Amino acid sequence: MPDPRFFSSAGPFTVSQLLKFADVEIAEGHSSQRLVSDVAPLDVAKSDDLSFLDNPLYIENFSKSLAGVCIVHPDRVNEAPDGMSLLLTNEPYLAYAKIASAFYPDAGSLSGRENSEFIDPSASIGTNASISPGVVIGGRAEIGANCKIGPNSVIGEGVIIGDECQIGPSVSVEYSIIGAGVRLFAGARIGEAGFGFASGVDGHVTVPQLGRVIIGNGTEVGANSTIDRGSAGDTIIGRGCRIDNLVQIGHNVILGDGCIVVAQVGISGSTQLDDYVIVGGQVGIAGHLKIGKGVQIAAQSGVMNSLPETGKYAGSPAVPMRQWINQAAMLRTMGRKKVRKDG
Amino acid sequence: MPDPRFFSSAGPFTVSQLLKFADVEIAEGHSSQRLVSDVAPLDVAKSDDLSFLDNPLYIENFSKSLAGVCIVHPDRVNEAPDGMSLLLTNEPYLAYAKIASAFYPDAGSLSGRENSEFIDPSASIGTNASISPGVVIGGRAEIGANCKIGPNSVIGEGVIIGDECQIGPSVSVEYSIIGAGVRLFAGARIGEAGFGFASGVDGHVTVPQLGRVIIGNGTEVGANSTIDRGSAGDTIIGRGCRIDNLVQIGHNVILGDGCIVVAQVGISGSTQLDDYVIVGGQVGIAGHLKIGKGVQIAAQSGVMNSLPETGKYAGSPAVPMRQWINQAAMLRTMGRKKVRKDG
Amino acid sequence: MPDPRFFSSAGPFTVSQLLKFADVEIAEGHSSQRLVSDVAPLDVAKSDDLSFLDNPLYIENFSKSLAGVCIVHPDRVNEAPDGMSLLLTNEPYLAYAKIASAFYPDAGSLSGRENSEFIDPSASIGTNASISPGVVIGGRAEIGANCKIGPNSVIGEGVIIGDECQIGPSVSVEYSIIGAGVRLFAGARIGEAGFGFASGVDGHVTVPQLGRVIIGNGTEVGANSTIDRGSAGDTIIGRGCRIDNLVQIGHNVILGDGCIVVAQVGISGSTQLDDYVIVGGQVGIAGHLKIGKGVQIAAQSGVMNSLPETGKYAGSPAVPMRQWINQAAMLRTMGRKKVRKDG
Repeated sequence: MPDPRFFSSAGPFTVSQLLKFADVEIAEGHSSQRLVSDVAPLDVAKSDDLSFLDNPLYIENFSKSLAGVCIVHPDRVNEAPDGMSLLLTNEPYLAYAKIASAFYPDAGSLSGRENSEFIDPSASIGTNASISPGVVIGGRAEIGANCKIGPNSVIGEGVIIGDECQIGPSVSVEYSIIGAGVRLFAGARIGEAGFGFASGVDGHVTVPQLGRVIIGNGTEVGANSTIDRGSAGDTIIGRGCRIDNLVQIGHNVILGDGCIVVAQVGISGSTQLDDYVIVGGQVGIAGHLKIGKGVQIAAQSGVMNSLPETGKYAGSPAVPMRQWINQAAMLRTMGRKKVRKDG
Repeated sequence: MPDPRFFSSAGPFTVSQLLKFADVEIAEGHSSQRLVSDVAPLDVAKSDDLSFLDNPLYIENFSKSLAGVCIVHPDRVNEAPDGMSLLLTNEPYLAYAKIASAFYPDAGSLSGRENSEFIDPSASIGTNASISPGVVIGGRAEIGANCKIGPNSVIGEGVIIGDECQIGPSVSVEYSIIGAGVRLFAGARIGEAGFGFASGVDGHVTVPQLGRVIIGNGTEVGANSTIDRGSAGDTIIGRGCRIDNLVQIGHNVILGDGCIVVAQVGISGSTQLDDYVIVGGQVGIAGHLKIGKGVQIAAQSGVMNSLPETGKYAGSPAVPMRQWINQAAMLRTMGRKKVRKDG
Repeated sequence: MPDPRFFSSAGPFTVSQLLKFADVEIAEGHSSQRLVSDVAPLDVAKSDDLSFLDNPLYIENFSKSLAGVCIVHPDRVNEAPDGMSLLLTNEPYLAYAKIASAFYPDAGSLSGRENSEFIDPSASIGTNASISPGVVIGGRAEIGANCKIGPNSVIGEGVIIGDECQIGPSVSVEYSIIGAGVRLFAGARIGEAGFGFASGVDGHVTVPQLGRVIIGNGTEVGANSTIDRGSAGDTIIGRGCRIDNLVQIGHNVILGDGCIVVAQVGISGSTQLDDYVIVGGQVGIAGHLKIGKGVQIAAQSGVMNSLPETGKYAGSPAVPMRQWINQAAMLRTMGRKKVRKDG
């Protein structure tokens, strides 16, 4: 369930009410009076939650889901678990976007905008915390003891910052729970809405981003890096990670402990890195992948498949390092031969 | 003509006055008394405007231009249209930089700096707009109804923001006209000067950036992304686009409606994307290209040529997707063979 | 020695005191009573400084160093110069991180946080300088004549900004000395801590970043670009450079005069570019390399080795342009052949 610190629900709705929000129909014989309390991903949804299946990667989650109601393509009806009520449509993600927006009509809004004072009176500031000029702190935010918040930084409504954190100038943190001893350098953007939308005939419909960013103790995030909050479920960064400048981390990404992510890396949504993964500069990692413990990825690689086994990888598309060395050597030879022949 | 909302001209000048600003000479038999009101690109210049030809890509624009006066290399004299007065130099772009700076001596200045109050009294704020603490709004700026402007954001002089826009924390918008329902996420930089300079023997001379950024209704721009204003003419982003985090869009780029641009993409100056183009993460697109309607470009591709035909492309340099799959397969085979032979 | 404008030392310490801070032992027969005033890199350290050798690239610097005390792996004892006292450990960089942190316990802190006023009374503002609303200026900072500082920008403690500089909105500058006529566009982050840490069994230990950023006259830095300060020694950007948006420049990088660095380039730590180098968009350059005068590197290249000779280079890994053109042509041919065969 979306954290009520950050999101307030307009629900519950009955299934028949949901029909007004999106172009779906109730599967034959399924009840229209069932009550839906909330939206949730397939793997954590409970019997009073609504979920959806769009990406076929998650069919197994669908078949095992406890969700009471699910939006799904008509072709998937036979794979549904017993007792699940189905809402059918050819565009499940688009329908989810519309229904989730009805549950959380303000989720698109950016937090912390309504207070007229720089520091909202309902925020709590820990012992000996140092708040610089120009800092804006939203309602119910909690700043830990001995924190330093740099000039002109913005801490959104409800955000929790642990003890001993150092936050540089012009940082923004929204929809996030930050551990102790975390350092966020200048211009880091934590907790913005992820890149989520469903494309229909009328254009792209924004999917409300209902998750948070959770950052573990002792992690550091470089200047002007961006970590988006989860769409449903959270974006989670482990303890003791080192994330360099201008890194992009998409919604629902999970990083284990001690990961090293060099500058200008992009990690796409829902990808998971186990502990102690090292990602070289300017690497791109596609979405929905799993990268194994201690994997090392060379700079500028493009990772298109999961890399479950520990080892070094390089290239775009990324292959085991030794293969990449061969590829590079052969390319080099080809380039030189041609030169000689022309010369 | 540069928008007088943002730029004020020191002109007009006679041709003979222009000779003082840059090292050019009047082509034989051309008048020195002609009056020049303004600077403009070749394709939109009128008979009282000055333009220039430097990049040979634009020779056709030159031959058809209605510009009254044009700075050009002596080798191009014969390709000039009738009635155009020519200013000759071996370094047309450098001369243009200097003359355009004489027309717009303050164009290098960053806007919104002179007001001593956070919200300039001459700015207009629409009904029910919510302005957060720390927001700075420059003179004559117009904020639409129901807008939310996040903490510590900066709206420059003369900027227009349409109704129902949501602007995150620490955003800056300068020299721009923003449509309705636009969302700009934290740290987005809209309307900075483009990367324009002419290199001469004394180093790089900055070319004044005299255009704007125009963003269509319903478009979203991600955290810490940068969209530079036009150098002459505008940078234009269509309606309903989705631009992710840390994206760079150069001056004079044009995006059609409904384009999707994933994180960390860079689009170089003057390139045009038709409607519904999809650009994968970390793609780079060179300048002065045209990308056709609905083209899809895979992540990390490097686009060096125009892609007029609808289809999927991949690789660096980018080729049709099927070719790229073959290339990747062959590279993989080569890498594996070598391993086997060594093993 | 770290600039006392920015860093204050808790030293001096005797060698025996240093043993408390890190897990090192004194080499047999070396004195424990020697006094250590400061930490410094091998090539500039003096007889009362402590230095360290970790990266084997710097063995020659070690053998010639005048440092009085050096942290080093036991295997390197025989390569030490006469008169140098050695502190032995299998993890020299980790030990240096801990000892340097003892010398500079506040170096991890972000500057400018302690003042409660937007403009610290001890800062000096030059004649006719224009300071926008929301600007925060730290103690002892010096702003030159005729500077413009954009709204909500942050100038850290002790920073020096030369005359005639233009600083956009939401910029931050810390631990830096900026020349005259420099332009920093919106959201640029100058002087943040570099990406420096030593990895031990207990995780990554941050190495204090004790250098500065020095930017030469007339240089421009694009929106949301990041230039980290030196770890020991400085990050130095020459005169008249043009650096585009979203560029990352790591600690201790040196750029000569007139360099052009296009958007989204990443230059890793300690790499040196000679004058007039041109770096195309999205290029990555590895650390500790030297790039010769006037070298031109094509967009998206990955530079893994030094390029001392003037010329054009392309590809990842980067090779001379002509070789790369051959590689690209052959790849294209391979891709097409396969298509034909399949077709």
